[in-house]
Amino acid sequence: MPSEFDLIHRYFTRPAKHADLAVGDDAALFRVAPGMQLAVTTDTLAAGTHFFHDTSPYDLGWKTLAVNLSDLAAMGAAPRWATLALTLPTADECWIAAFAEGFFDCAGRYGVDIVGGDTTRGPLAMTVTLLGEVPAGQAITRAGGQPGDDLWISGWPGLAALGLMCLQNRIQLTDSSRALTALHRPIPRVEAGETLRGIAHAMLDVSDGLAGDLAHLCKCSKLGALLDADALPLVPLIAAGADESLACQALLAGGDDYELLFSASPGARDLLAALARKLNLPFTRIGQFTEETSILLVDGSEAPPRPLDVRSYDHFAPPD
Amino acid sequence: MPSEFDLIHRYFTRPAKHADLAVGDDAALFRVAPGMQLAVTTDTLAAGTHFFHDTSPYDLGWKTLAVNLSDLAAMGAAPRWATLALTLPTADECWIAAFAEGFFDCAGRYGVDIVGGDTTRGPLAMTVTLLGEVPAGQAITRAGGQPGDDLWISGWPGLAALGLMCLQNRIQLTDSSRALTALHRPIPRVEAGETLRGIAHAMLDVSDGLAGDLAHLCKCSKLGALLDADALPLVPLIAAGADESLACQALLAGGDDYELLFSASPGARDLLAALARKLNLPFTRIGQFTEETSILLVDGSEAPPRPLDVRSYDHFAPPD
Repeated sequence: MPSEFDLIHRYFTRPAKHADLAVGDDAALFRVAPGMQLAVTTDTLAAGTHFFHDTSPYDLGWKTLAVNLSDLAAMGAAPRWATLALTLPTADECWIAAFAEGFFDCAGRYGVDIVGGDTTRGPLAMTVTLLGEVPAGQAITRAGGQPGDDLWISGWPGLAALGLMCLQNRIQLTDSSRALTALHRPIPRVEAGETLRGIAHAMLDVSDGLAGDLAHLCKCSKLGALLDADALPLVPLIAAGADESLACQALLAGGDDYELLFSASPGARDLLAALARKLNLPFTRIGQFTEETSILLVDGSEAPPRPLDVRSYDHFAPPD
Repeated sequence: MPSEFDLIHRYFTRPAKHADLAVGDDAALFRVAPGMQLAVTTDTLAAGTHFFHDTSPYDLGWKTLAVNLSDLAAMGAAPRWATLALTLPTADECWIAAFAEGFFDCAGRYGVDIVGGDTTRGPLAMTVTLLGEVPAGQAITRAGGQPGDDLWISGWPGLAALGLMCLQNRIQLTDSSRALTALHRPIPRVEAGETLRGIAHAMLDVSDGLAGDLAHLCKCSKLGALLDADALPLVPLIAAGADESLACQALLAGGDDYELLFSASPGARDLLAALARKLNLPFTRIGQFTEETSILLVDGSEAPPRPLDVRSYDHFAPPD
């Protein structure tokens, strides 16, 4: 069996573009460009909690970096450097090779250098810490929302949740391919996040379901929201074979989406429409921020607004 | 049971001194001082691999940060910011409170801000990524050794290995207290590491046994070494109750020491003696770098130098 050192060296040592010293010493060394703030985030994926044990190692490699890229995108930061702490039950070289391929494909796509890591024997889990740069003072936090701001969501939230329900045999879809791809190979909205600097007032990435994450955004911005049920982007979910009720559930209470939820001034609507075309990524206007701190759902009917159930995915909450 | 969000908020949100934005958003934001390079390292501790399941949570909290501090110390960097990814089988609030106390006691002692984290349900493990600053170009890498440099080791290497053997009932010591403290509450040599900038030519922290880590240092510096068996700091190990053979084994092949192994010009001996007194930390001169790339052990006898067994601790190597 190859040693830990051999494995790390063989699969995780690649030339670094933005680092003075990468993998192989006690720490990596790099420089932050003048006028930049550093943004840092960390996320763990653990077998049995975040993915099934038989998930493809290539997909896991991709996703473990992608979920962190999504966090930096939500700040409007450009990703630069990552460390990977990988815990493996055995040193299965085929598994490691495929994992590394997925991981470095994602890193290459988004210009990230792998500058450090640690390999440990134990139950399968991976933790990435990702560092990026953002011009000082221009990061988009969760706290900048203004009353009257439009609320927008990128892409196709809910697809990953449908994919998970499919894998669990809880539902059947007429076309599960997009849903499974969304679950296994999430596309972090890195370009969109950077493009939204100076336009979005508040932003986060939706990883725990739109309803719960909207509640986080409202709380941090000390605002409420009016969500328009008729505006929710259900079409891709229905096209995959979900009925309207299931589509709503997947979008509002699902997880693993990694879309951007953000607020912007109503005056920015034309600009956002143009940016969405340029990015080839839909931005859907789904409601607005309100001074009143409740979160209400309205639709085109004459029914009065009703409170939104804001339960989001929580690893420690008892199952439903 | 409190939710994941409640737990993180309650125990891991503390005011940050060096960050513009800490825990609570998608990423933390901070600035690096002009003229500084950033140093980053990451290390995982996993239950069953790095510690016993019944290890005190306070000690684990301390140690999970300390082992990363040791890596930055070995670069001569000043620690500043850390993220913590914590994987827990259950949300046991007492355990979490004690873990957080140990973790923040260590962070406070060394001036580290906790700027981000992730809490996950799964088998007990913790990954810290630690960031620090070092004046650009002044980091002490593993590669800077010169032929003829003295080799030095800080502190009391081998004590932690004795502590582990005690816990495993493999040995009995007349006084196990220092050995167990070295194992459970390692003191990272942060001040020493910073002090050695401009003096040490090559440095690493000894976490996998002196022999194996010396081999790493030699390989990176493209040199060999002559190690003087009679100079090894065995006295604290013998004082704890180990015989000479056990003491040698613990020092050379043990792990978990977190002492600094470094090389320096013979002209720096007086300066290093003075610094050791000031730091209240012994620096022991144990040999020298050689052009010949083998690692040999000599002693005061007339026996010829013999090759050093450089096996070091490797999580994936089959057990002896």
